[in-house]
Amino acid sequence: MSVITLCTDFGSYDSYAASMKGVILGINPKATIIDVTHNIPAHNIAAAAFVLNGYYTYFPKNSVHVVVVDPGVGGQRYDMVLRTRDYIFIGPDNGVFSYILISQPSVCYELKSRHTVSTTFHGRDIFAPAAARLSLKWDRSIVGNIIRRPVILDIPKPIISSRGITGEVIHIDHFGNLITNIPSDKLKIHAVNKVLAIFIKGVKINGIQETYERCRNGVPCAIINSSGLLEIAVNSGSAHEKLGVNRGDKVNVLWK
Amino acid sequence: MSVITLCTDFGSYDSYAASMKGVILGINPKATIIDVTHNIPAHNIAAAAFVLNGYYTYFPKNSVHVVVVDPGVGGQRYDMVLRTRDYIFIGPDNGVFSYILISQPSVCYELKSRHTVSTTFHGRDIFAPAAARLSLKWDRSIVGNIIRRPVILDIPKPIISSRGITGEVIHIDHFGNLITNIPSDKLKIHAVNKVLAIFIKGVKINGIQETYERCRNGVPCAIINSSGLLEIAVNSGSAHEKLGVNRGDKVNVLWK
Amino acid sequence: MSVITLCTDFGSYDSYAASMKGVILGINPKATIIDVTHNIPAHNIAAAAFVLNGYYTYFPKNSVHVVVVDPGVGGQRYDMVLRTRDYIFIGPDNGVFSYILISQPSVCYELKSRHTVSTTFHGRDIFAPAAARLSLKWDRSIVGNIIRRPVILDIPKPIISSRGITGEVIHIDHFGNLITNIPSDKLKIHAVNKVLAIFIKGVKINGIQETYERCRNGVPCAIINSSGLLEIAVNSGSAHEKLGVNRGDKVNVLWK
Repeated sequence: MSVITLCTDFGSYDSYAASMKGVILGINPKATIIDVTHNIPAHNIAAAAFVLNGYYTYFPKNSVHVVVVDPGVGGQRYDMVLRTRDYIFIGPDNGVFSYILISQPSVCYELKSRHTVSTTFHGRDIFAPAAARLSLKWDRSIVGNIIRRPVILDIPKPIISSRGITGEVIHIDHFGNLITNIPSDKLKIHAVNKVLAIFIKGVKINGIQETYERCRNGVPCAIINSSGLLEIAVNSGSAHEKLGVNRGDKVNVLWK
Repeated sequence: MSVITLCTDFGSYDSYAASMKGVILGINPKATIIDVTHNIPAHNIAAAAFVLNGYYTYFPKNSVHVVVVDPGVGGQRYDMVLRTRDYIFIGPDNGVFSYILISQPSVCYELKSRHTVSTTFHGRDIFAPAAARLSLKWDRSIVGNIIRRPVILDIPKPIISSRGITGEVIHIDHFGNLITNIPSDKLKIHAVNKVLAIFIKGVKINGIQETYERCRNGVPCAIINSSGLLEIAVNSGSAHEKLGVNRGDKVNVLWK
Repeated sequence: MSVITLCTDFGSYDSYAASMKGVILGINPKATIIDVTHNIPAHNIAAAAFVLNGYYTYFPKNSVHVVVVDPGVGGQRYDMVLRTRDYIFIGPDNGVFSYILISQPSVCYELKSRHTVSTTFHGRDIFAPAAARLSLKWDRSIVGNIIRRPVILDIPKPIISSRGITGEVIHIDHFGNLITNIPSDKLKIHAVNKVLAIFIKGVKINGIQETYERCRNGVPCAIINSSGLLEIAVNSGSAHEKLGVNRGDKVNVLWK
């Protein structure tokens, strides 16, 4: 069994993603190729890093996760293979693997091509062949030198005080839900038997609801999302549109 | 062989659909996972029900069809397994399976999780594991009590008189074709050797064409679509844009 | 092993693509179905032809490539199977296979259905079953008469003079890159040791860069893309938006 997942910013109407799939099937015809998304916003490394962190743990052990959001393709950045206990990750060394590097013991290797490749499409010419080969079995000879200091994005951390937590919106999903960097465990530890007030863009939200359905239609509310993060949502609507909030905007939680 | 189809409103740039696929492959590594669409309009149960009705019959027997358009997730509605002679359907009991329930003998079961799950993502935590297990084989012990009265949407029916048929637009497809709830057999029975006139938003359309190509470019025309429903189309254009018609707008067919 | 690729203009929220996949799996349960894209602009035969040319060669031999951009469905045009040494192509005889027909020895066959089919969805009723059967093995009895003169689009060719090359933009990709019909070999032969200037929409671009990264942010630059064609790009931006260039607009390369 060999699962290869693909997460890119190639969009949905060019030949780029298909070319990668063709290359993979040519090397490992039995690979199960999973399209995660090809609609990461163009060149948005932080978005790719966040989305990857949302799905990779749900895949079977030994799955190969390929991420291609790669504005620096052909330049100085490394082509990289990152290996954790359970998974192999392949993509540019530009920060797309930040969440993995922060949370998992891992080793990073430089990936080198043995033949001439394009300077603009390493997804097809380097990452796809490496993914296909490594999905068959781990082979140290495919990868090169160890990369000692892989690129890690500056991921904002929530600031916890005796009065509350200050965090920020780190992702806006398809439903317009505003996902923050405030994990539920921080809220629980500090908020047992306390009542919370959440402030975002001048709007005050009282307490945390258990389900979207508990929130009044059209009114911003707070929930803990399926990744365990504080999320601002609007039932049957878009918190993003309702509040005019953008990625990076602050969220303040106050113990009452 | 085990085919699992996925139809959701998760959109195309988050980790949600991928998480479901990972969970499925962890339980049934040989599952053939088919992305139907993840672009059902957010929270639009009626659209999901209509789209599902368009594809499920074309899949091999014993395919498992998962639909996750689920604004009430975590609330009072049931998580449901619906079994017909040929297929298994899995999703929320909120109306997404209306067309199946109306047209097929079926039994509905409550789906219960044995362990703690998120309150916001039953697609990943309940529906995906159930789909994977039931794709391996039907197992009564996975499902719970029978649901006696599953939710069925109020699907508009055409009204037939001696003078003609009044129906409405029930779906607008990617091409801007306006698909009505008027089935071709009703037109045939009543219209043999008769000439039809179709009225929609004040525009009169004479007769039914056999192919899009027979319609004059840019002019609204009527055809019988590939599901056997009356459809208003514009050759090489969008009837939706041309006529400014929305879902729910009336269509009148008159025998001349 | 049997790979079937699907490239259509069906969009991403209807049942059409899924119906094709269901039909395929009913005939060949072991088929590996690859979604290339379902977002070719509606009715845009030229775009489908260009995109197909970008991926088909990367797939394993004997892959079956299905293309359904088919405004003339049900009309006079043939349903077609095109066979080259390495691949089978299936779709309407309307020009979608132009690049293959120009560049590869091939034979074209008429595809006829033995039973009644819809007049509006040959993708599901004719192309999908034929693809599934031919992915199992080539069977001359499935196809009909040879088509002597398949439709070939008028694909614009660059004009080369002693002073330079005049070409045009033939595709605008998801990143807003402007892909021209000028192949790199023409530039190399004529430009060894010469300095190039490229003119597009009144803007002058000096020389060709090796990677996107070498281009100054926000400034139009020229590169050779991963298909070996001259491309106008904007690093971390969209050349399409920046220059207001459309498909068909001229590009002039001058030897300095």
